[in-house]
Amino acid sequence: MSSSHSLRVAFQGERGAFSEDAVRQLFPEIQNLVPCASFEALFASIGDGTADYAVAPMENTLAGSVHRCYDLLLESGLHIVGETVVQIRHCLIGCEDSSLNTVRTVESHPVALAQCQRFFAQHPHIRSVASEDTAGSVRHVVETADPMLAAIAGASAAKIYGGRILANHLEDHAENYTRFALLANEPLDSSQSDKISLALTLHNRPGALSDALAPLTRTGIDLIKIETRPMAGRPWEYRFFLDLAASRRDAKVKSALRELESSAVVEELRILGSYPSAKNKTIHFQTHSNKEFAKQ
Amino acid sequence: MSSSHSLRVAFQGERGAFSEDAVRQLFPEIQNLVPCASFEALFASIGDGTADYAVAPMENTLAGSVHRCYDLLLESGLHIVGETVVQIRHCLIGCEDSSLNTVRTVESHPVALAQCQRFFAQHPHIRSVASEDTAGSVRHVVETADPMLAAIAGASAAKIYGGRILANHLEDHAENYTRFALLANEPLDSSQSDKISLALTLHNRPGALSDALAPLTRTGIDLIKIETRPMAGRPWEYRFFLDLAASRRDAKVKSALRELESSAVVEELRILGSYPSAKNKTIHFQTHSNKEFAKQ
Repeated sequence: MSSSHSLRVAFQGERGAFSEDAVRQLFPEIQNLVPCASFEALFASIGDGTADYAVAPMENTLAGSVHRCYDLLLESGLHIVGETVVQIRHCLIGCEDSSLNTVRTVESHPVALAQCQRFFAQHPHIRSVASEDTAGSVRHVVETADPMLAAIAGASAAKIYGGRILANHLEDHAENYTRFALLANEPLDSSQSDKISLALTLHNRPGALSDALAPLTRTGIDLIKIETRPMAGRPWEYRFFLDLAASRRDAKVKSALRELESSAVVEELRILGSYPSAKNKTIHFQTHSNKEFAKQ
Repeated sequence: MSSSHSLRVAFQGERGAFSEDAVRQLFPEIQNLVPCASFEALFASIGDGTADYAVAPMENTLAGSVHRCYDLLLESGLHIVGETVVQIRHCLIGCEDSSLNTVRTVESHPVALAQCQRFFAQHPHIRSVASEDTAGSVRHVVETADPMLAAIAGASAAKIYGGRILANHLEDHAENYTRFALLANEPLDSSQSDKISLALTLHNRPGALSDALAPLTRTGIDLIKIETRPMAGRPWEYRFFLDLAASRRDAKVKSALRELESSAVVEELRILGSYPSAKNKTIHFQTHSNKEFAKQ
């Protein structure tokens, strides 16, 4: 394929979205950004040839998992080859002639508005209006050029659309992070991989989950996340998404995964990816060199 | 308090919502329905004295758990004292002069629209429009009296607002159920209780979940659901919501719960409720007599 700086990387949202920040953390020299209007378009972008990689939000430390992305990851057959964590910092962004005193209406995505309740409580004369997108709201505010209108979004959106940052740190909780998965058509085989993501379906019988986890427990593999999703057509049965702190190159891990796969309670095991984790979880970025992911 | 038929039971949504069907399954003779505009209002309704019981949707077999209700259940301190399962049947509902041929626009809640994709694929001249509420859309359609406009909602909404059912079974998947929890201020102590719901936080160390589940596994207690939610201020740590098929009156269960509570890996254990389950999970209702829940 192409050299690293001609890589095309897809993300969901408009330019300036937090997802674009995630792409830039993973690929600092990225030139070909592929914004996608929906999660469906994002997960289709590699298959339809418009992108080489896709970056998808999997969970936020306040709002929880992005379940639609878990479902689409499974359907798409894409592989997780990396991840990054973006610290979510909400700014109040107005047009050029605005100030905090002129603003009467603030628009943003409902999740962003919900994460800035203290700001609205402290400014009762400002009302909030739900919109489709954080960055798209900034574009709208700048285009409208109405000093009474502002948006809540990340600082990148202000830079891209020429908005003015009127206030910083609107978020109620400072510990606000979103973890993004880097997705590709082919699995990664890297000596730096220290995290494994699995999807697991079990036969519906008492004790199935405990029995399934037993080989992992015995081997001392740390289960760092477990997520459940319903299965269409099988009411009250669940698919489990597991994240393990483990390397597939480790002989003990290989053996535990084999044991898991052949377990009597396991119906299906899929390895969604084996990849380098965003190690220091409270540090807000983890960059990989473009080279590592570029297929020459 | 009052006799059974003067009980006040709160639900989220407008009259005719699927949540009202859940209330009627639990209390067939209910006279005092308390519709609430939001989940926040629903979970506050008992504490602020406007309702004796509240009925909250906890999970749908296609869309998954209603995470906001899990969060609010924990915050509210309310107890689960029962549950019921409503089969979700989507109808196309128009005004009196409408027919399937006159309809060009269909409005409903986005989750309902998403569950009727086949109908829209088969009727490409009909467009869908998102609204706040299924039953509220029926009210709007009937008030507007425009034969080109219809709504997707349950049959109860047609009856309440005088709408005409133009088509039945719009749902893509027949196996579409929502499980509702019945909530009260005081826990239930009933010999019929065969299900226990717990909220669990663990110390953040390898193997904590497996270690925590061990006493349940050893006792042969069936874990029928596990749900994880993030914890504000503690990035990448989770609260676990567990549903167990077990009776608190069973000595073995009591002992396992004591062991769980005193486990070195368990930070906090909260029993959210012990109650009779909606036993036959594929049957679409489970009624309790009003008397059982009425406090004389």
